Amino acid sequence: MAKISNISGFPEWLPEQKLAEDWVIEKIKGIYESHGFVPVETPSVELMSTLASKGVVDKELYVLRRANAEDDGEAELGLHFDLTVPIARYIALHFNDLVFPFKRYQLQRAWRGERPQKGRFREFYQFDIDTFGRNTLPLACDAEILTVLDKVYRTLNLGNYVIRVNNRKILLGLYSSLGLDGEQRQKAIVAIDKIDKLGEAAVLAELVDGVGVEAGTASKIVEFCKIKTTPEKLSATLSELAITDELFAEGQRELEEVLFQLSSETQSKIEVCLSLARGLDYYTGLIFETLLVDYPEFGSVGGGGRYDGLVSQFSNQKVPGVGVSLGITRLMNFVFENNLLPLENKTPTRVLVSVYSEEQRVACNEIADRVRACGVPTEVFFTSPKLGKQIDYAAKKNIPFVLFVSAEDNSLRIKDINSGEQIDVDDLEQWCGAIND
Amino acid sequence: MAKISNISGFPEWLPEQKLAEDWVIEKIKGIYESHGFVPVETPSVELMSTLASKGVVDKELYVLRRANAEDDGEAELGLHFDLTVPIARYIALHFNDLVFPFKRYQLQRAWRGERPQKGRFREFYQFDIDTFGRNTLPLACDAEILTVLDKVYRTLNLGNYVIRVNNRKILLGLYSSLGLDGEQRQKAIVAIDKIDKLGEAAVLAELVDGVGVEAGTASKIVEFCKIKTTPEKLSATLSELAITDELFAEGQRELEEVLFQLSSETQSKIEVCLSLARGLDYYTGLIFETLLVDYPEFGSVGGGGRYDGLVSQFSNQKVPGVGVSLGITRLMNFVFENNLLPLENKTPTRVLVSVYSEEQRVACNEIADRVRACGVPTEVFFTSPKLGKQIDYAAKKNIPFVLFVSAEDNSLRIKDINSGEQIDVDDLEQWCGAIND
Repeated sequence: MAKISNISGFPEWLPEQKLAEDWVIEKIKGIYESHGFVPVETPSVELMSTLASKGVVDKELYVLRRANAEDDGEAELGLHFDLTVPIARYIALHFNDLVFPFKRYQLQRAWRGERPQKGRFREFYQFDIDTFGRNTLPLACDAEILTVLDKVYRTLNLGNYVIRVNNRKILLGLYSSLGLDGEQRQKAIVAIDKIDKLGEAAVLAELVDGVGVEAGTASKIVEFCKIKTTPEKLSATLSELAITDELFAEGQRELEEVLFQLSSETQSKIEVCLSLARGLDYYTGLIFETLLVDYPEFGSVGGGGRYDGLVSQFSNQKVPGVGVSLGITRLMNFVFENNLLPLENKTPTRVLVSVYSEEQRVACNEIADRVRACGVPTEVFFTSPKLGKQIDYAAKKNIPFVLFVSAEDNSLRIKDINSGEQIDVDDLEQWCGAIND
Repeated sequence: MAKISNISGFPEWLPEQKLAEDWVIEKIKGIYESHGFVPVETPSVELMSTLASKGVVDKELYVLRRANAEDDGEAELGLHFDLTVPIARYIALHFNDLVFPFKRYQLQRAWRGERPQKGRFREFYQFDIDTFGRNTLPLACDAEILTVLDKVYRTLNLGNYVIRVNNRKILLGLYSSLGLDGEQRQKAIVAIDKIDKLGEAAVLAELVDGVGVEAGTASKIVEFCKIKTTPEKLSATLSELAITDELFAEGQRELEEVLFQLSSETQSKIEVCLSLARGLDYYTGLIFETLLVDYPEFGSVGGGGRYDGLVSQFSNQKVPGVGVSLGITRLMNFVFENNLLPLENKTPTRVLVSVYSEEQRVACNEIADRVRACGVPTEVFFTSPKLGKQIDYAAKKNIPFVLFVSAEDNSLRIKDINSGEQIDVDDLEQWCGAIND
């Protein structure tokens, strides 16, 4: 007998969990499509040169090798670690076949060979949307991404949430006005991104020792980080700081414009949070992430931002982009751990047709097809034991109705498993219509 | 600039093709769910020991390695090459959490490191259903798999098709009655599986030289292969051969019983074809595959059968299974090459809200949300250029309607892109209801 095991970092769900995941995916997909995002998928693999072009820590990459294959000079392939690099490569490759602005959604697995730890996976689903423009991409597209993200959270109904926003230009402009050079500015972003995790003292130390700024400047950066404000108070709060830097001013204008375009419903969920930095180095403007207020330890399950230079790593074209990535596997793991969704159904089946004897099976199949034609998933019991056993099966799988077909005259009787009630059914199609409503 | 390229054997579709693929997947999923199959997914990887347990040619396997990782004693992982071995391992692992008969569908990518060739891919989607029983699995489940397969082909409407069926026991029983030993019987199955591809002479030679049977016996095997019959004539045809072998008789009984349970509609698509063998060694009873009659060179896109011993490679439990695997990527590639589905839509969007000026954008967003609330995917144009440019965008993406919002009084006017007609709309929700019908 071969050894079987769960492989650490590679989760798999039970059927009732997968049904819940599919429900979540369908909800999100409906919102994405309602805004006109079109589905795209890319291969699971890219050339290693493509994956490395962003300067990723390559220890996290999975490389493929054909078992026992001789070295045949084929280019080295790796599993993608996100969906943003692949879609940038896709756009560069298919540029002339796409209509811009190009709005796509993408639900795929990604892989990272990290050390497995609680809530981190080596294989996981991401569900992304991004909008790409030809040469330019107006801030209306940034606002739409935030709107869609808000709708997703509103629909999933996982409790109170906040969408934290910032703009990279505000951070870079501030650091510039404090005298940091280009390299220091990038390092400072990486440092303050960890303030929630490591605390103020650690970040101060990193700014002084790692980034090489003076203690006074480091304090100012950390003080700045603590600023949190609302869309309404954003202008007043930032103006009060009296920072005269062009990039800072541009970041402020951009953020004000994006937030202005949001509905008041979405605005009420926005928190401007000047500590937000986002680790990835490709962001150039708006950045954001979400937080479930009642589960602050869970961290962000959806974040993203504006990146104006990524596609041009693969193309001569200028194709600015903005998007959000939702970590579906992390989200579902969290949902299961906290029992946030009902997991009663073990099957899509709603009607079980019971079978008195094998002679009756063909007739039962025909009746089941009539129920299916009304859009009601139906099973015919696979053997013909005593009825109690068939009803047990329905109860175990949470199938709500059992249909009995009389062996004498093919008349129909239906048992409601939850109430125990039984009724005769003369018009099967009418009954199906009623349970569909 | 990083080098970009399509990687041979790893296909990716344009948005209009992906929309067509999603249409096909939704249709198939609807049929699977209507019969009560529940979604399951497994990781993309398995332990190499799991993948190898069936004695696969391991050159076709992709092995994973973490880039630059030190040898840390982790078990070797490989990408799965089908969905049958993973689900057998899944059932063994989660046996106590599943309700039997366990009916699941699974849509996932699989990988094979074969030499790329026309119509063969290294990464491809399979869309499988299988039913598993605890200890026993009645033939009603085999019949259901054929019924579902027939419904899929009927629904996809890709032209005339045939479902070829056979039973491994009929083949093994025949070979046994001709004096072949166990190893020879397995080899003979592999040999005759190639008769369509290699022709009669090559198979005769292989039977004599490779399998080691006498020329007269080889001729009998090949003659037997040529037998094709219908469900109605099956009994008569097989009885005429006067083969007295218990396994042969059991295979005949099984096949007769399975075909008897099918609707006359499905029976009309069945061809009993005694040359059908299926290469994989785990089949133990019913085997089948489909053929598109107008495209015989395309080969089979959906096949499967009964396998009673696979799960027990991973478990002490006896869990017979039967199922079918549909090669979605091969199917879609074939559909695209032969223009079998319309590819007009480049987006789910049905209404484009045009924007006269940026001052109007927030109002346009609100109107778009009203249309979306009626279930109609809607975009708001991302800038506010001359209307002609906005209408061009709708035409390029095949968006059927453009909605104009008056800058003066917010009154609404809709242009039908196909007819060119324009109408005033007083009740937006009513109009949405009408286009939904």
